[in-house]
Amino acid sequence: MIDEKYKKAADFAVSGIEAIKRTGIRVLEMRDRYAKFLMPLEGNVNHVGMMYAGSLFTIGEFTGGIIFGASFDYNKFFPIVKEVNIRFRRPAMTDVTIEVELSKEEVKRIQKEAEEKGKADFTLDLEIKDVQGETVSLVHGIWQMRKIPEGMESPFPK
Amino acid sequence: MIDEKYKKAADFAVSGIEAIKRTGIRVLEMRDRYAKFLMPLEGNVNHVGMMYAGSLFTIGEFTGGIIFGASFDYNKFFPIVKEVNIRFRRPAMTDVTIEVELSKEEVKRIQKEAEEKGKADFTLDLEIKDVQGETVSLVHGIWQMRKIPEGMESPFPK
Repeated sequence: MIDEKYKKAADFAVSGIEAIKRTGIRVLEMRDRYAKFLMPLEGNVNHVGMMYAGSLFTIGEFTGGIIFGASFDYNKFFPIVKEVNIRFRRPAMTDVTIEVELSKEEVKRIQKEAEEKGKADFTLDLEIKDVQGETVSLVHGIWQMRKIPEGMESPFPK
Repeated sequence: MIDEKYKKAADFAVSGIEAIKRTGIRVLEMRDRYAKFLMPLEGNVNHVGMMYAGSLFTIGEFTGGIIFGASFDYNKFFPIVKEVNIRFRRPAMTDVTIEVELSKEEVKRIQKEAEEKGKADFTLDLEIKDVQGETVSLVHGIWQMRKIPEGMESPFPK
């Protein structure tokens, strides 16, 4: 379930960037500091019938943006991705899902650092799972939250 | 320029997988053990006007498949990607290109190992560059070439 207050953010996340929208990714759940979403196999198949590596990357990379939206004030900050490592552990032959969560303490730490320094890094280690619950890919990524400069409009919906 | 003998492979590479085709990626050059290709900014822009991370990943990951096609017998082997690390060094505000090349020695080593063991890993370290020649992203990837099992049809055009 998507909490009412995150419906607009979830909709923007899957449709605001054309290259993400094309994949058909869907947000399944979103609440304070938590999200779960799904990449369909349909439309994302490679030359040997499994999910294309780039679509697995997208569901992995997507976590940074959506957990940002579920944890921080997106009229004040915006996220960028610095680095992602993805290990393709076994073929993804079904739709896949991923869950991402930040603790209250981590949110506090990031927010404080971004307020003070204008930016703050955060790291996520995540598992992409198939419908049997098997981990198909392992994602390790570093994102950075930045203060929106004075005079720059937020790129996100109000 | 794309060598005549690679025209079919280059065309398959950009159009054979729907999720790659959607990005508008184009092969600029392809000859023995070498390829250069381009990801257009148009259709691949993110929420802050730069190229979307997933499209940068795709041009990076694409190298493994295309250099495979330019170096090995694709009626006998097929490539899979095992792991990719991508570091987003600076924003990509233009179309980007990437070049990939394997030495004759490396091709020989991989081919020999794949013939003997049925599979062989190869590693690529690559730079994604903007039109000014600045490196926007650094890609480190591990691919694996596998023998097509007896009775399995090659997933590639003859």
